[in-house]
Amino acid sequence: MTPGRSLLGALVGDAELEALFSDEADLQAQIRIEAALAMAEAECGLIAPEAATAIGEACARFVPDLAVLAGSMAQDGVMVPGLVRQLRAAVGDIHGAALHMGATSQDLIDTSLVLRLGRAITILEARLDALGAGLVALKARDGSRRLMAHTRMQVALPFSAADKIATWQAPLVRHKTRLAELKPRLLLLQLGGPVGTRVELGERADAIAANLAARLGLGHAPPWHSQRDGIAEFGSWLSLVSGALGKLGQDVALLAQNEVAALKVAGGGTSSAMAHKQNPVAAEVLVAMARFNAGALGTLHQALVHENERSGAAWTLEWIVLPQMVVTTGAALTTAQTLVDALSFT
Amino acid sequence: MTPGRSLLGALVGDAELEALFSDEADLQAQIRIEAALAMAEAECGLIAPEAATAIGEACARFVPDLAVLAGSMAQDGVMVPGLVRQLRAAVGDIHGAALHMGATSQDLIDTSLVLRLGRAITILEARLDALGAGLVALKARDGSRRLMAHTRMQVALPFSAADKIATWQAPLVRHKTRLAELKPRLLLLQLGGPVGTRVELGERADAIAANLAARLGLGHAPPWHSQRDGIAEFGSWLSLVSGALGKLGQDVALLAQNEVAALKVAGGGTSSAMAHKQNPVAAEVLVAMARFNAGALGTLHQALVHENERSGAAWTLEWIVLPQMVVTTGAALTTAQTLVDALSFT
Amino acid sequence: MTPGRSLLGALVGDAELEALFSDEADLQAQIRIEAALAMAEAECGLIAPEAATAIGEACARFVPDLAVLAGSMAQDGVMVPGLVRQLRAAVGDIHGAALHMGATSQDLIDTSLVLRLGRAITILEARLDALGAGLVALKARDGSRRLMAHTRMQVALPFSAADKIATWQAPLVRHKTRLAELKPRLLLLQLGGPVGTRVELGERADAIAANLAARLGLGHAPPWHSQRDGIAEFGSWLSLVSGALGKLGQDVALLAQNEVAALKVAGGGTSSAMAHKQNPVAAEVLVAMARFNAGALGTLHQALVHENERSGAAWTLEWIVLPQMVVTTGAALTTAQTLVDALSFT
Amino acid sequence: MTPGRSLLGALVGDAELEALFSDEADLQAQIRIEAALAMAEAECGLIAPEAATAIGEACARFVPDLAVLAGSMAQDGVMVPGLVRQLRAAVGDIHGAALHMGATSQDLIDTSLVLRLGRAITILEARLDALGAGLVALKARDGSRRLMAHTRMQVALPFSAADKIATWQAPLVRHKTRLAELKPRLLLLQLGGPVGTRVELGERADAIAANLAARLGLGHAPPWHSQRDGIAEFGSWLSLVSGALGKLGQDVALLAQNEVAALKVAGGGTSSAMAHKQNPVAAEVLVAMARFNAGALGTLHQALVHENERSGAAWTLEWIVLPQMVVTTGAALTTAQTLVDALSFT
Repeated sequence: MTPGRSLLGALVGDAELEALFSDEADLQAQIRIEAALAMAEAECGLIAPEAATAIGEACARFVPDLAVLAGSMAQDGVMVPGLVRQLRAAVGDIHGAALHMGATSQDLIDTSLVLRLGRAITILEARLDALGAGLVALKARDGSRRLMAHTRMQVALPFSAADKIATWQAPLVRHKTRLAELKPRLLLLQLGGPVGTRVELGERADAIAANLAARLGLGHAPPWHSQRDGIAEFGSWLSLVSGALGKLGQDVALLAQNEVAALKVAGGGTSSAMAHKQNPVAAEVLVAMARFNAGALGTLHQALVHENERSGAAWTLEWIVLPQMVVTTGAALTTAQTLVDALSFT
Repeated sequence: MTPGRSLLGALVGDAELEALFSDEADLQAQIRIEAALAMAEAECGLIAPEAATAIGEACARFVPDLAVLAGSMAQDGVMVPGLVRQLRAAVGDIHGAALHMGATSQDLIDTSLVLRLGRAITILEARLDALGAGLVALKARDGSRRLMAHTRMQVALPFSAADKIATWQAPLVRHKTRLAELKPRLLLLQLGGPVGTRVELGERADAIAANLAARLGLGHAPPWHSQRDGIAEFGSWLSLVSGALGKLGQDVALLAQNEVAALKVAGGGTSSAMAHKQNPVAAEVLVAMARFNAGALGTLHQALVHENERSGAAWTLEWIVLPQMVVTTGAALTTAQTLVDALSFT
Repeated sequence: MTPGRSLLGALVGDAELEALFSDEADLQAQIRIEAALAMAEAECGLIAPEAATAIGEACARFVPDLAVLAGSMAQDGVMVPGLVRQLRAAVGDIHGAALHMGATSQDLIDTSLVLRLGRAITILEARLDALGAGLVALKARDGSRRLMAHTRMQVALPFSAADKIATWQAPLVRHKTRLAELKPRLLLLQLGGPVGTRVELGERADAIAANLAARLGLGHAPPWHSQRDGIAEFGSWLSLVSGALGKLGQDVALLAQNEVAALKVAGGGTSSAMAHKQNPVAAEVLVAMARFNAGALGTLHQALVHENERSGAAWTLEWIVLPQMVVTTGAALTTAQTLVDALSFT
Repeated sequence: MTPGRSLLGALVGDAELEALFSDEADLQAQIRIEAALAMAEAECGLIAPEAATAIGEACARFVPDLAVLAGSMAQDGVMVPGLVRQLRAAVGDIHGAALHMGATSQDLIDTSLVLRLGRAITILEARLDALGAGLVALKARDGSRRLMAHTRMQVALPFSAADKIATWQAPLVRHKTRLAELKPRLLLLQLGGPVGTRVELGERADAIAANLAARLGLGHAPPWHSQRDGIAEFGSWLSLVSGALGKLGQDVALLAQNEVAALKVAGGGTSSAMAHKQNPVAAEVLVAMARFNAGALGTLHQALVHENERSGAAWTLEWIVLPQMVVTTGAALTTAQTLVDALSFT
């Protein structure tokens, strides 16, 4: 949203995940989809094989004109009309019309999103696993340390570091289960044509869609243009993950207070004015990211109210909010990993 | 939150679900839990069988003193200390100390909540089924009517009422799947004792918990005092449901515009100043409830940041927000049913 | 929203403010407005003086039938059509038609809201003053105590209790200034007629409005049916207040930690399982209320997107959210007062 | 948050305002503040005049090492410790220690923010004025056209385009008043030293602060490190503005529906699949931006709960949210201007 903020990015950004939401990644995915769509349509007899070949070759060598696409975005609210014009010109007069046949802007945009969310999920899962392993190692090393439990911000009764760590581990296990359950509802091809009926794809519409889904490694389901529950559910999952990490961060910040001193965080932040300070920066940032994502989730769910067959308002809202949530969750996982690796119970 | 608003309740309330969150329902559940806990503890040898019998009898005839409980609530932040004092007095000196043995306030409060959420879910599921049936009937009757699809608030291409209705049906089916997946993570006994370790229950702690869970018809899992992901996930589900109904409401309000006149809603609202008006009140209220729940979800997820072993702040926030979300979702399902039953495509 | 929760109300409710949002208070205000409108219209020559007299007498003795009004609410989305029918019947055939002349439902509902917000503001201001006085007294008594400042959850440098208390006082002073600035934008008569043009009131429309505003003790401005910025601005103010109190509560909860022990809170909450606990319940509840109001503010601002001349969706959303915010803010002020009165720096 | 998204930026971004939140703008402001602080401290006798001269010269020619600053950000949670080290090295051994004397990281960061918010406000005010002028012109040209008013998504009664436009104008006028009121509470120097007491600045602390504030063109007030109401209030204002524009957008989208055709938007968006479409893209994007900002406001107000003398968690949350809100509001003003200029009532 606010480019040029690489310093803030050093704290709450995530270059690997941000790359998935770059213009470049989006365009690459959309071009890949157009090529695959042509192949699927050729195999199912909707367009000529030579057209698919020409489209595939044009897509392989295509270099988009970003200034033109930005103009299309500003005027059309989507870059697809501009992209399709450019791609058709690259394909040439003979086969150009066969490109994007029976598809609509939303088919490209949503499918591109889903392809990249699939890659994001792979990254997030790996980080969840690594964090889980980090917690196992921490428990193995420090689990037997005695620790004072606290309820309602007051000393309660003693328990062990292992008891505490277990409360951080358990939600992560459930988050993996939840992810396995929601993935088949999220990683779905979008292919519906102008109003979501696939009528423009003719009698073999469902076969084309199934073919295209298989080519892209996505699930096949009826079009879901105006049904955004899969997106909103994924947003909920992201906030559940960052919320669990925010709870871990809050615990660490409380236990690392000088007066409590139940644990130490190696490499804490320094102060420009107080040389003695060892600030639990990573722990605090986890809390900030949890609260950011929680609020963003409330906004994302506003986009469930999607007018008729396509809402420019609700859809644009998703575009702003969802990538930030993915990036924040990914950054939270990395930050949590760093924090857990630096922790020692005293 | 604001008692004495029965007129607003006529629009967005739900007496059946509100009753599950009344003081009375909560107290009944808590008393039931104390009795069942005593039985479980007696069976597992933690307390004497006579104590369990005495506790059971006292619970059966117990009438709480609400004024005292309100005082406990205001001072302790929970009513349980006051309730336990009253219950022990009712049990009498000999066996009173055996009541609430090894439990903490949160065990009672969370388990009471979960018991009542189980009943709420049964109600919500039945309403989802009924609404699904209503949509099937509507599709059967009106599905073949031609309808203009609209994208980005403009006329797109014609499709059928069946195509439109299908976009309302599909999310509801997924919501039932999601509910089946999350229920085992939500409808779980809470029994952890003061700091969530069950140490106070002795060696047979897990057996007691399993026994108690079975008596209450709940799942058995380790204590989840400070792990609120099950609650937050359920909140997400509630907002997904109300969001889908808000989308249905938004569609109806748009299609019922006089200039569009693609459908009629029988029994629309009247105006105090314009006799000709037929306002799509139910449709608008569905949008309002979807937006309310979306925002509330963002607040509920803030409560994932739960300090240490029990956060009075985060927990209290849940108490305010979650019941409203359940009631709003239930009211939305009823309102949607009324609306669907009154719809006819023209 | 969820009636029958008086125990939760003992923690986060506020009977005095809730009463302002009861059906009874709303109806009383609406009836008062109808009588005053008739007087204003008679003085300006729109209706006969005898009609105004008859209306005034009928309003004075009127007892509404709540069941009928609930039916109007459910069908019309507002109770006003039902109320006007009842009132006209009470006035009788001769002058009944002169009642509600040139007005619309929204005129009654918004003006009734504003009248009651005016009373709520008087209460909130008095509580702000009392809290300010409590902080002055605390500073006078304990201000010279040395206290350790904390930044980023770590010990920083010593300062004094007076320094700390000053950070709690300063925002409250600004909140009073803000309130003085926004009141003239909020406490405004709503009188626009069906589409907000006052055309139905004839040539003396503005004179009638000015007359009515004066009778009701409200400011006079053009109709603001679809312009909800005054409401949204007031919501922002409420969240600023509860946010400042949440910050105070968070500070107290942190400073009252056993390991920090920088202050004591007399009469802390007890635990059902740990006799030694002294829980800072009021402090935690302040945090919960701040977070609740912050989230609610995000929802209330969604209602700024108000369709055309009257949005049933956006308006209903306000009805659900705003009263809760007022009550929460009022409860937070009372809770903060209790907490400040119980505080002593050590 | 997600760099590399210039295409989305073409729709909802704002290069002019984004530049104010770039690393470069932030660093320039911080360096300017260090130089001005040294001058103020020299004038008030805290440091030697030669030190101030040396610091001023070093600041004038200073080129920061961004990689080092990113490292400081990641470790310390703020870039200031890294920046101060670099600046002191540039000043040299003799006078280096005089730089940043008595200041803390937050003094630099908050004052830098406020300096840039002042510039943002100038931009936003100019756009508000331009939009106001656009609406005046629209009203002058089209105001006499008859238009159907709509309430609750139904045809109500006829009024005029002037009546409608007036409902768009009035909130903008109030927003300017609100801005004039809040500016003196927002555009304030932050200078408090490590724990906000200015003790490190000695007896002439307030004189130094007043001197520095005057140099920077900011107001002078006591330190407000942990008092974030000025920031949260400004966020509320931003959402009020974007909300008013979202209402305008919603109205235009509804009135531009083909079936309603009450107005035309020149240069509407095209579709990749439907050649006849004229999508009201700008109107929809206004709705999306209003909803985004409303939700973001709810998140920003969570940051009012600021722990003790400095909260890394709450402060970081502000850094993520507030710039997005400024940029979104600015983009909404530009988009609204484009839309109003393209509108014609039919």
